[in-house]
Amino acid sequence: MDEAAFIAALRALAPDPAARGLDDDVAVIALGGEHLILTHDMMVEGVHWLPGQDPADVAWKLVATNLSDLAAKGAQPLGVLLGYGLGGGEERFLVGLGEALLAFAVPLLGGDTVRRAGAAAHGLTALGRATCLPVPTRGGARPGDALWVTGMLGDAMLGFEALRDARSDRDTTRFARPVPRLAEGQALAPLVGAMMDVSDGLLLDATRMALASGVTLAIDSAACPVPADLPATRRRDALAWGDDYELLFTLPAGQAPPCPATCIGHAQPAGAAPLLLDGAGPQGRLGYQHQQ
Amino acid sequence: MDEAAFIAALRALAPDPAARGLDDDVAVIALGGEHLILTHDMMVEGVHWLPGQDPADVAWKLVATNLSDLAAKGAQPLGVLLGYGLGGGEERFLVGLGEALLAFAVPLLGGDTVRRAGAAAHGLTALGRATCLPVPTRGGARPGDALWVTGMLGDAMLGFEALRDARSDRDTTRFARPVPRLAEGQALAPLVGAMMDVSDGLLLDATRMALASGVTLAIDSAACPVPADLPATRRRDALAWGDDYELLFTLPAGQAPPCPATCIGHAQPAGAAPLLLDGAGPQGRLGYQHQQ
Repeated sequence: MDEAAFIAALRALAPDPAARGLDDDVAVIALGGEHLILTHDMMVEGVHWLPGQDPADVAWKLVATNLSDLAAKGAQPLGVLLGYGLGGGEERFLVGLGEALLAFAVPLLGGDTVRRAGAAAHGLTALGRATCLPVPTRGGARPGDALWVTGMLGDAMLGFEALRDARSDRDTTRFARPVPRLAEGQALAPLVGAMMDVSDGLLLDATRMALASGVTLAIDSAACPVPADLPATRRRDALAWGDDYELLFTLPAGQAPPCPATCIGHAQPAGAAPLLLDGAGPQGRLGYQHQQ
Repeated sequence: MDEAAFIAALRALAPDPAARGLDDDVAVIALGGEHLILTHDMMVEGVHWLPGQDPADVAWKLVATNLSDLAAKGAQPLGVLLGYGLGGGEERFLVGLGEALLAFAVPLLGGDTVRRAGAAAHGLTALGRATCLPVPTRGGARPGDALWVTGMLGDAMLGFEALRDARSDRDTTRFARPVPRLAEGQALAPLVGAMMDVSDGLLLDATRMALASGVTLAIDSAACPVPADLPATRRRDALAWGDDYELLFTLPAGQAPPCPATCIGHAQPAGAAPLLLDGAGPQGRLGYQHQQ
């Protein structure tokens, strides 16, 4: 059974509205006058990180990627639970975990430690509270909205390639130690139509937003913010690369965002393709898909 | 770094009171007038289940063991998040997951699916709401209290051995499909001094309760409830075997529990040993310790 079939079967087991159809990165639970936001991500050696990569960076990224899901909901983090597979690298993992908890001011609340059998696999659950209602979804983009993205796209790709090739001439921080856009997410949440984090590649994640919203998103590739050292021939690659953990969101036309961001396109009524890149449906790879 | 050293280091990273010193199976978070109870457990093939065991039972047990931690707090389950490592057995896993969600009336809220590399490893996060305050801990036993346990001890051991040896003459249900004592936990929570689930063996878990409470717990082995087919020579083994997922709790002397349970001993002022078995500190193995 492949991943798509498995997730489809899981979806049938998750009819509760709080599960949001397993389609929105998080669960949202009303509890005692608050709305709790929950997310859980796993990372596997050789799949989500390079063998030999510093376990401190693995720990950081495990925390950061989960908090990025909270950021996209405008949530205030309340804590994390760690599921850790023992088997080497613990000292460095603890260093990176401590640094991430401190950097993002999020408490470690619990979890589990198990012996591993084979490659390392760790999981993390993050919970937060909604800071505004309704909690943003991928599905709120409306025709006429402007499409925005925070930060830059492609830094993680260039950093990954430098790390993979053991080159020291390129900063790898944005790949190894992504920073969830928590403050930006909280500032944006009351204003946005749709919002999500760019974890699997701009073109793929924008396609998901378009499909969830029932619109077509038109992106101007020249407007997309990329690092200064990105070769012109790599721009298309950068737009299909994951791991940037920037926020992608829509605002009504003419409205300025409350944080630094770049307008990269707009929403229009649903056409033949959910995504247009420079006026045409994009060919080729849109992003990181787990089955590839 | 071994597990004890790793957990000690984690504890230093978890000073938040909600983490309860990483020593109480769950985190307890006050939120909007409610108290949220959170737990996360992982299971690894070859460590937590027999290679070749039905993935439906693995799924059931992953849900049941996490809910057992909620049961020991008297919590009402609100939902679970699944971290699943793809790589075979998905059809049967889904069957068992669906059966457990239905049996325990708990919604699947979200999670993550990843490719596995090596042995299967899955994680589950369960959350619930406290049904009474204060939320029971391991640390509430007082000298003079009576010590009780629900159900029977040793059924999981006999079931495991039958499954391991491919014998069909013994029911394996209590090993393969443990049932968290959710209703009992909610009925007991307002009454108990200390409460925890028996997951690693009665003698080990009772030792933990004694140490957390600052008392000595004296257990009468002949009083411990065991299955009718347990050989007399195996009674000591049954008391050190994990996976029973019964509730161990204390009540003031003379008070009857609101659910079926067996009185197996009492608490006395802390002596030289935290645990007395038939009047003496027990020798040998007390239970399942992760480093063994």
